[in-house]
Amino acid sequence: MKHYAKPLNKLINELSKLPGIGGKTAQRLAFHILSLEDKEAFALADAIREAKTSMKFCSVCGNLTDVDPCAICSDGTRDGKVICVVESPRDVAAMEKIKEYRGLYHVLHGVISPMEGKGPEDINLKSLITRLREKDVRELIIATNPNIEGEATAMYIARLVKPAGIKVTRIAHGIPVGGDLEYADEVTLLKAVEGRREL
Amino acid sequence: MKHYAKPLNKLINELSKLPGIGGKTAQRLAFHILSLEDKEAFALADAIREAKTSMKFCSVCGNLTDVDPCAICSDGTRDGKVICVVESPRDVAAMEKIKEYRGLYHVLHGVISPMEGKGPEDINLKSLITRLREKDVRELIIATNPNIEGEATAMYIARLVKPAGIKVTRIAHGIPVGGDLEYADEVTLLKAVEGRREL
Repeated sequence: MKHYAKPLNKLINELSKLPGIGGKTAQRLAFHILSLEDKEAFALADAIREAKTSMKFCSVCGNLTDVDPCAICSDGTRDGKVICVVESPRDVAAMEKIKEYRGLYHVLHGVISPMEGKGPEDINLKSLITRLREKDVRELIIATNPNIEGEATAMYIARLVKPAGIKVTRIAHGIPVGGDLEYADEVTLLKAVEGRREL
Repeated sequence: MKHYAKPLNKLINELSKLPGIGGKTAQRLAFHILSLEDKEAFALADAIREAKTSMKFCSVCGNLTDVDPCAICSDGTRDGKVICVVESPRDVAAMEKIKEYRGLYHVLHGVISPMEGKGPEDINLKSLITRLREKDVRELIIATNPNIEGEATAMYIARLVKPAGIKVTRIAHGIPVGGDLEYADEVTLLKAVEGRREL
């Protein structure tokens, strides 16, 4: 990469630090940025700066937000009696896309993972317990990802919360809509059979 | 994407304007940028701004540079009698990587393409003619890409320049080193046979 002038080299270098962006892609992106109108290129630079400056975590649910508490937590029309526990702010966005869920969220910012040395105290769990103690919550929907760490985290939270008389549910795992039995892995198929419902 | 706070949305939106970056990737990059230290994120923003502000085209060869004339044009140790004609600044970088070529460059910033309504006057050709007229150039190596437009541009330049007594050459096309005859397309194989050399 040393065949470019310094400012271009620096841009390529910074871009290639992004996840999934290799040297070639960084080069292509850098040339694209140089080919843009000043206004457009500066808009990207400013968007990075602004997002980085103004985005923070909601003090209630831990979601990413520019106002505290976040728009979801401070939305009076939502059902505060239901809290959906997710791993990351991205999962909040995924849930919001279905447009059906009207409860609140709690973002763990990770999962319990002994392999990575991450215990219950390393995720945003303490504030969940405080929330459950202070507010009148009826149901806790645990929507961590369906992998070992996600399941373990779900089990841990369930055991922690159930004694307080709060209903703890887990989102269903099974064959995706439009999916094909033939191509489903055994574990998914097993979950689908286990989770069968009467018609 | 409307489920995120405004600054995050804006960042995702700006990122997704980049070539090859779709909505999902833009989202992933945006979250990554938010997870960075302030210093790192600002370094990216600043690199974009700085590159956009300080990079311009060399008034001699048309290459991207932060000084004019560019480092290659003003390098006295290089052979000013040989000029390699390429389509883009990226091609200059590719040529420089082989570390063998010691001549100068001329960047066309495109190719002649009647399909896209681009004629000889739409590429950086006029300044090449001026250079050839003013400087003592012995050889013009045409290294446009081996596709229809690249070949047509090469032919056009050759016809234009040859009458002035300048040697015009074209880089060789054939089987790439490490390549496999079996997987080479017919046109490449034909070029390889046509360009055969005595051992």
